Amino acid sequence: MRCLWLENRELRYREDIEIGALPDQEALVKVNLAGICQTDLELVNGYYPFTGIIGHEFVGTIASAPDSPERVGQRVVGEINAACGNCQYCLKGHARHCPDRTVLGIVDRNGAFADFLTLPLKNLIPIPDQISNEAAIFTEPLAAALQIQAQVDLQANDRILLIGAGKLGMLIAMSLRQSDLNLTVLVRHQFQQKLLHNLGVQAEFQSNLTEEKFDIVIDASGSRNGFEDSLHYLRPRGKLILKSTYSGETLVDLAHLVVDEIEIIGSRCGAFEPAIQLLLQNRIDPTVLLSERFPIEEGLAAFASASLPGKWKVAIEF
Amino acid sequence: MRCLWLENRELRYREDIEIGALPDQEALVKVNLAGICQTDLELVNGYYPFTGIIGHEFVGTIASAPDSPERVGQRVVGEINAACGNCQYCLKGHARHCPDRTVLGIVDRNGAFADFLTLPLKNLIPIPDQISNEAAIFTEPLAAALQIQAQVDLQANDRILLIGAGKLGMLIAMSLRQSDLNLTVLVRHQFQQKLLHNLGVQAEFQSNLTEEKFDIVIDASGSRNGFEDSLHYLRPRGKLILKSTYSGETLVDLAHLVVDEIEIIGSRCGAFEPAIQLLLQNRIDPTVLLSERFPIEEGLAAFASASLPGKWKVAIEF
Repeated sequence: MRCLWLENRELRYREDIEIGALPDQEALVKVNLAGICQTDLELVNGYYPFTGIIGHEFVGTIASAPDSPERVGQRVVGEINAACGNCQYCLKGHARHCPDRTVLGIVDRNGAFADFLTLPLKNLIPIPDQISNEAAIFTEPLAAALQIQAQVDLQANDRILLIGAGKLGMLIAMSLRQSDLNLTVLVRHQFQQKLLHNLGVQAEFQSNLTEEKFDIVIDASGSRNGFEDSLHYLRPRGKLILKSTYSGETLVDLAHLVVDEIEIIGSRCGAFEPAIQLLLQNRIDPTVLLSERFPIEEGLAAFASASLPGKWKVAIEF
Repeated sequence: MRCLWLENRELRYREDIEIGALPDQEALVKVNLAGICQTDLELVNGYYPFTGIIGHEFVGTIASAPDSPERVGQRVVGEINAACGNCQYCLKGHARHCPDRTVLGIVDRNGAFADFLTLPLKNLIPIPDQISNEAAIFTEPLAAALQIQAQVDLQANDRILLIGAGKLGMLIAMSLRQSDLNLTVLVRHQFQQKLLHNLGVQAEFQSNLTEEKFDIVIDASGSRNGFEDSLHYLRPRGKLILKSTYSGETLVDLAHLVVDEIEIIGSRCGAFEPAIQLLLQNRIDPTVLLSERFPIEEGLAAFASASLPGKWKVAIEF
């Protein structure tokens, strides 16, 4: 089948990879459309030593499901963490932290930039007809955006600064806007500011924020500079929510965290249902972020385009 | 007066420093006994560019208080952060985070390794007669230890690992033991393990802990290695409480914090009243940690002794 294969930090288009035998309780999914995420770009940069097909934001159609044949033909999105179901994390409802999990296109499981993928049936969530493929590929990153509010009790009077108005940053801005929170987004480009203003979100350049301090800072910058900026804008006893994953280590003055009693909260994936509900109710339209589509054969060109600074979502179609 | 003066990372014993004029609402305190803290050692190492008399753990007697003459003769300990009283932090009860604060022996205010110090009257808290000078000098670090429980809601079924059984670590262990929490202390020396066992606290060497993961890890190691160890022992979605301040920056894999949704909580000073109550009720006896006393004239020898690895509290007397 056609796919994008990562090996030794080199991404290649291949047609010689076959899907393996379907494990028990898993389904074969024909991928319809898949989005390129910052994590995909970081994987190519060596963030995690993965060899295989990358890609984890997708919408597809169940093509085979021996353990649940009535689901064949269902249009689905997929929770990317495939967990054991039996460990202390799984039993406590934290399957996304199962130590034995595989992660679609990230850890020990081939991903979505391919004609077909497999995932456990329980990971595959039906997508209502009213949600287009173009919106559905945003389910996973929107769920990740909503995870912030699942972890941190944000209050109406909290002054919140979001650093980074890229793909994930925009979805975070949209989701916080839905909750009517006091949000400012730190932008680097006019087109980011314009889109945020259209959404009714306050957006500022760094030059206009020099002396302000915020109660909550969300780092979705995808870069090491974002962490330093986050601490700069955070008040003592403030909370810094980390959303970006990138390769390499960052120098941190830990004493500053102690003296100012800063709280740092790492935040990753979220539950799909709230994201699907927001899409179904048309309360968020992420398709304004879909800027380009490439056929799978042009996957390397898609990655090159997605790597350009300030790029919105690039999708790969089949 | 006699004092220990820090300048350009050089600590000197001096007798030529005079106490300045007493500001409004401040008192002159004759220092009786003062403890050397890890932060003092770090200040000498350049953790913070302070010039002046260091020292912030003390018990003394009010010698002059023009705005409150009835307090002359009172034996007191002192809250080390002298705040403005008017800013948003002060008004919200977070005076220890006042941006205009001075800090005794740390930021813009001469400290306790001197015959006399000055602090605002409201910072000086009477010490009941039942509490000895030797116990009273532990009020400030014990308050810092108790701040952990003021910030984080520790549960009886949380598995807690404390890394570091030095001066602050031991006080943390004593305070958590009081609250009947499930605590293990990572020790580096037999004498640490022995003292902890005498206190009824589980204490292990690293070699016995290799595969375990904890819900809560407290880093009171005072060293960069402690941070790496902390993350190693922390489970996904666990909480890491930072208690140590030291100079320099630490390399941190921020992506790990995101993927495992780790929470990091910086924790510094605490309220004195709960600490004084514990001392008054004899529920904690910190004087087992007092290993040496030096007269102020031998202050440099006291610092040399306090710098030895695995050293308990060294005090300076007047």
